[in-house]
Amino acid sequence: MSSHEFYMQLALENALAMKGQTDSNPLVGSVIVNDNRIVGIGAHLKAGEPHAEIHALRMAGDNALGGTIYVTLEPCSHHGRTGPCAVAIAEAGIKKVVIAALDPNPLVSGRGVKILEDAGIEVEVGILEEKSRKMNEVFNKFIVKKLPFVTLKSGVTLDGKIASYSNNSKWITSSESRLDVHKLRNENQAILVGVNTVIHDDPELTARIPNGRNPIRVIMDSTLKIPLDSKVLNDHQAETWVFTTENHVKEKKDQIEELGAKVFITDSPQVDPYRVLEILGENLVSSLLIEGGGTINAAFLENKLVDKAIFYMAPKLIGGNESPSFFGGKGIEKMADAIELTDLHVTPIGPDFKFTGYPKYI
Amino acid sequence: MSSHEFYMQLALENALAMKGQTDSNPLVGSVIVNDNRIVGIGAHLKAGEPHAEIHALRMAGDNALGGTIYVTLEPCSHHGRTGPCAVAIAEAGIKKVVIAALDPNPLVSGRGVKILEDAGIEVEVGILEEKSRKMNEVFNKFIVKKLPFVTLKSGVTLDGKIASYSNNSKWITSSESRLDVHKLRNENQAILVGVNTVIHDDPELTARIPNGRNPIRVIMDSTLKIPLDSKVLNDHQAETWVFTTENHVKEKKDQIEELGAKVFITDSPQVDPYRVLEILGENLVSSLLIEGGGTINAAFLENKLVDKAIFYMAPKLIGGNESPSFFGGKGIEKMADAIELTDLHVTPIGPDFKFTGYPKYI
Repeated sequence: MSSHEFYMQLALENALAMKGQTDSNPLVGSVIVNDNRIVGIGAHLKAGEPHAEIHALRMAGDNALGGTIYVTLEPCSHHGRTGPCAVAIAEAGIKKVVIAALDPNPLVSGRGVKILEDAGIEVEVGILEEKSRKMNEVFNKFIVKKLPFVTLKSGVTLDGKIASYSNNSKWITSSESRLDVHKLRNENQAILVGVNTVIHDDPELTARIPNGRNPIRVIMDSTLKIPLDSKVLNDHQAETWVFTTENHVKEKKDQIEELGAKVFITDSPQVDPYRVLEILGENLVSSLLIEGGGTINAAFLENKLVDKAIFYMAPKLIGGNESPSFFGGKGIEKMADAIELTDLHVTPIGPDFKFTGYPKYI
Repeated sequence: MSSHEFYMQLALENALAMKGQTDSNPLVGSVIVNDNRIVGIGAHLKAGEPHAEIHALRMAGDNALGGTIYVTLEPCSHHGRTGPCAVAIAEAGIKKVVIAALDPNPLVSGRGVKILEDAGIEVEVGILEEKSRKMNEVFNKFIVKKLPFVTLKSGVTLDGKIASYSNNSKWITSSESRLDVHKLRNENQAILVGVNTVIHDDPELTARIPNGRNPIRVIMDSTLKIPLDSKVLNDHQAETWVFTTENHVKEKKDQIEELGAKVFITDSPQVDPYRVLEILGENLVSSLLIEGGGTINAAFLENKLVDKAIFYMAPKLIGGNESPSFFGGKGIEKMADAIELTDLHVTPIGPDFKFTGYPKYI
């Protein structure tokens, strides 16, 4: 590991430690080095509070003069509460700026670097860039596309099944995996299932961990088949948003709304998954966890809408031509067009294996 | 690691180094220790040649007196080319015998230990027992059950598919995985597919590695649908054995035999997988690799006939309700009855993951 990477890694670790407390802001960390000594560290702690570089500069004080600052995200060029960070860095007499990743927003990307270079400061970009990008993967997509970052989660057997031919699915994965799912729910602003999951399983879709934050429960339900006595409509543990089409009974919509849920009407014959993402984005939902069955999963995968896939794979086989796999629908026709999962990692979790990867669409 | 384990591990490593050269005999290694020094090492090199203990005793010579011998398998009690090893050990003046695993054959298991104990020698059994058993898993089953050890291999997508809905399957797995399959073929005495695989893929089913030994090609074909121009009937790279039922055209049988293949007729309406194993066992086939499609795999898994499962899992998704999974058939009804894979290991192989496990049937 080069010294650049060493310092940037420290900046990343401090940034990541703030996960969950920066609200809509990205995670950012910073380290200032002078004469081979660390003279300042900083991280963005909370939206509305100073950026990481400002904290680090304050800690460094006069020692910032002639030093090198490491920052996991391009210093900002805009006038927030503390003025542009790029200007503050220049005014502190920093000689060199090492940046992991440029600002993901194409409207401002590179502007911070330009301010620094115009001030005669040496700038180097790209140290541990991937780690920085991955740390803010949700923010990076939302700030650019105004669509939530979509994570598909599924608990499957080693042969890719989510239930037996008799629709038995309790339990495929271990208690350790199921606990991890609750952490995933806690990290996502919304969770999506199809109405059939509500009908068959009547789930709560809550984050059952200490201090867990419950996501908004999003139900895709083209004809408003949702049972009025389902938990998501009655338990008031979190908001419930039902997406339907014009093809529904108006009275049912009123009944659902009376129970406190929101109903969104889309204008396609079936609820269009992209339209759901658009509406969620308009409502400032930046992250969505899909816990669908094979049909919902296929709708999002075949439309290339899944950004990240997480599988909890149990060391079990159930087989059966009629038992549902997690990716149903029609599927891909040719192996050459298969959806590749890039940057795929597998880690043991209890007796299961957890796969995390990023679909790459042809 | 205790010193017992240290010496037994060395014995195991020497035993394993002879893999593939002991023919129908088990792999066995031995180490003799006296006064905290290794005074002899041995391994069984070849059927008909001395057992591991004899080689180690010869190397130790007079230093065996008062020493401890480590042996990965219970010393034999029968009169072979060199007399019972248990007797030789006693005659050499060995004071203590440490054994990994008892003889798997219930007819003789424990007899070697008895000879040793009757001679006043201290015996300890069970050091690294699992490793020893696994090393000889093929031999251990065959010697007891007279049935081949069955390994099921499948190359699958992360969603358990072996082809797309259009039956496209080239290629699911990487060249690294496919090379590993050729090693598996080399290690197995026979390889089994269903006739549909022959019809669709016209495979050679050979071990295409340097010095590869080609397994006997076993085809399950209830009505003798096998094309007469298929490679397995014409390339003479290895024997081909076709298993069928009475429900076949006699003329086709003659034509297949004229091409040099053997035809076995079983008396059930469909070829019964257990009967196939029985006939293979009668013909001294001790190991069988199944490379079937979903139907053949299901026939062996649902009948609890698979001893070991190896999956090469590619980081790809193809989905589809109609695309075949590797485990077809009817499947298991309840999650509680799922086939668990015990001792499951996963290792990266090229871009793929190789899973190895042992089915545990309810």
